[in-house]
Amino acid sequence: MSNEILAKRDGPALRITINRPDAGNAMTDDMALELTRLLAGAAGTSEFVLLQGAGADFCVGRAGMARPAGAAAAPSLDALERRNMVQLIFDCYAAFRGSQVPIVGVVQGRALGFGCALAALCDITLASDAARFQVPEMLHNIMPTMVMSSFVDRVPRKALSYLVYSAAEIGAERALSFGIVSEVVPAAQLDGAVARLCERLANTPQPALRGVKEYVRSGPSMDTQGAVDFARNLHAVVNSSSKMRK
Amino acid sequence: MSNEILAKRDGPALRITINRPDAGNAMTDDMALELTRLLAGAAGTSEFVLLQGAGADFCVGRAGMARPAGAAAAPSLDALERRNMVQLIFDCYAAFRGSQVPIVGVVQGRALGFGCALAALCDITLASDAARFQVPEMLHNIMPTMVMSSFVDRVPRKALSYLVYSAAEIGAERALSFGIVSEVVPAAQLDGAVARLCERLANTPQPALRGVKEYVRSGPSMDTQGAVDFARNLHAVVNSSSKMRK
Amino acid sequence: MSNEILAKRDGPALRITINRPDAGNAMTDDMALELTRLLAGAAGTSEFVLLQGAGADFCVGRAGMARPAGAAAAPSLDALERRNMVQLIFDCYAAFRGSQVPIVGVVQGRALGFGCALAALCDITLASDAARFQVPEMLHNIMPTMVMSSFVDRVPRKALSYLVYSAAEIGAERALSFGIVSEVVPAAQLDGAVARLCERLANTPQPALRGVKEYVRSGPSMDTQGAVDFARNLHAVVNSSSKMRK
Repeated sequence: MSNEILAKRDGPALRITINRPDAGNAMTDDMALELTRLLAGAAGTSEFVLLQGAGADFCVGRAGMARPAGAAAAPSLDALERRNMVQLIFDCYAAFRGSQVPIVGVVQGRALGFGCALAALCDITLASDAARFQVPEMLHNIMPTMVMSSFVDRVPRKALSYLVYSAAEIGAERALSFGIVSEVVPAAQLDGAVARLCERLANTPQPALRGVKEYVRSGPSMDTQGAVDFARNLHAVVNSSSKMRK
Repeated sequence: MSNEILAKRDGPALRITINRPDAGNAMTDDMALELTRLLAGAAGTSEFVLLQGAGADFCVGRAGMARPAGAAAAPSLDALERRNMVQLIFDCYAAFRGSQVPIVGVVQGRALGFGCALAALCDITLASDAARFQVPEMLHNIMPTMVMSSFVDRVPRKALSYLVYSAAEIGAERALSFGIVSEVVPAAQLDGAVARLCERLANTPQPALRGVKEYVRSGPSMDTQGAVDFARNLHAVVNSSSKMRK
Repeated sequence: MSNEILAKRDGPALRITINRPDAGNAMTDDMALELTRLLAGAAGTSEFVLLQGAGADFCVGRAGMARPAGAAAAPSLDALERRNMVQLIFDCYAAFRGSQVPIVGVVQGRALGFGCALAALCDITLASDAARFQVPEMLHNIMPTMVMSSFVDRVPRKALSYLVYSAAEIGAERALSFGIVSEVVPAAQLDGAVARLCERLANTPQPALRGVKEYVRSGPSMDTQGAVDFARNLHAVVNSSSKMRK
């Protein structure tokens, strides 16, 4: 495996770094496959994932999306071929939603297209006040249905439409009000905020870390009474466990 | 047809203007019927709709809602008669949701009651920082269930309750955080922002414009796995089409 | 009954005060039972509820949650016993959602844990700009599934995860963007804002007050067409009633 996706265990954390800083951490298909593989295995060794980008940006999108002038056009595929070709991207998004452990994302610079989708999919996303978010696919005549699928259970309808139609670049506070970001921190304080959050998660009992992830996966999409009953029983299971009494 | 609702084709855009500036663009039933008719036919000739109000306001509500002191009371109707009487309003709201092409709203001044509903229903709503939003029905002893129906899939529960119970006037930034507005622009820059957005939409291939509208109509209300599968297949259909390769 | 929960009828309002100011209005099980009882009976005598905390805080949580160093551990219960033990808390939350009349909350200081849940559950929550919100359960090795159940139909997924995992304290504006608060008011103007809102509610016909509550209970969770049809019929029933013509 190349070193374009780095993974390192650090106590209860699995630290994953998108490591193509000279390319704004643009993600190749191989990198996306490796990220999916790491997320799928994280719960076997770790209690949470910390996802970061090396260098100035988080991730500017998928590699090769913005075709340079004069470059050959993408191959002409029929719909079923095209669906198969991008299955790995949907699988990557599914790995975020399906992870048994929470995933913390850190956005210091740009999070564009696929990168914006990853920022949205993390359970917690800390953003620098210098971070920028954009869904630029329409600028390249691509309908950004993949990114929309990552937003669909967390970004309000109106914000979703705006981001994809306008391809506008937005800042971190706007991304928070749109449901993409959890908290905004001055750039110079981002590392400290990440360290404090990781310490908090490291001090949380494992059943609680995983229980919250289990709840937010489906609770907010359930009918209200069902979501309350789910909470009531999950509360009893987790909080009565021997692992929570320490 | 009177000139109280103006419609003009401008390249791929259908420009609709609510044109009773001296009355704050208060909307009569005839105007609402005409607006519904225009939206229903827009996809036959145009790729997007631009909806604006003439003069200082977007729309201060339905004509005749605020009964002047001494005026005759509204006729006493039973529930079924009243339901029939306002069917045209629900039909107008349905035309926004059901349009095959996206609808861009521009709010420069007041968007009250019915006008606030229209602002919420547009796919993208650009607002001046001087814009004002209000659901004043309760001040006239009317339960604003019609406006609530326009908010129900885009304004969070807490914001919905507050706006109707309090009848409070809110500004554009608050309307954005409540899901009514997409972006807020300084008043002097609103025309430029609208022009740039229209240029962006004019440069977007038709299948993508219509595909996004198709997706946001029901995707955010679907169960998450279904919404992802819908996105996956819509992505393949649209992005593999000959119309997207140019 | 002790005076730790005060209730007083004031015209159409039932004023309920959490009255343990020296303890930050920390809520005992007996107090929660009494609050539930009052909310369940409110519609029999009153048209809305005003819920406030005495002293500096709204409510810092359930009494005895933060175990002092050296204190005996909570009893070891199996899951079914624990589920039964906290049933009264879920019943209290259910009384907020199930009330026939709207509930207005006023947060002047801290709303923590259970107190934060109550702030979220009120139909309208006016907050001082000095108010503070937090879900600190994880700091005490408790998974806050009860608070999550109060948030589930009004706080976006991303905000929900962040609040419980991080246990971060947030201010009133952030709580508004997270769906917990309806409006933020400078501390010195909070009493005046509450008085104006109460006057507004007192001047609203009873069927409209109750109709809006009925609608927001389930409308936003329904499929869009169903929610529109519910609004259409509720509009006809309420607005055609003799009680709305005055």
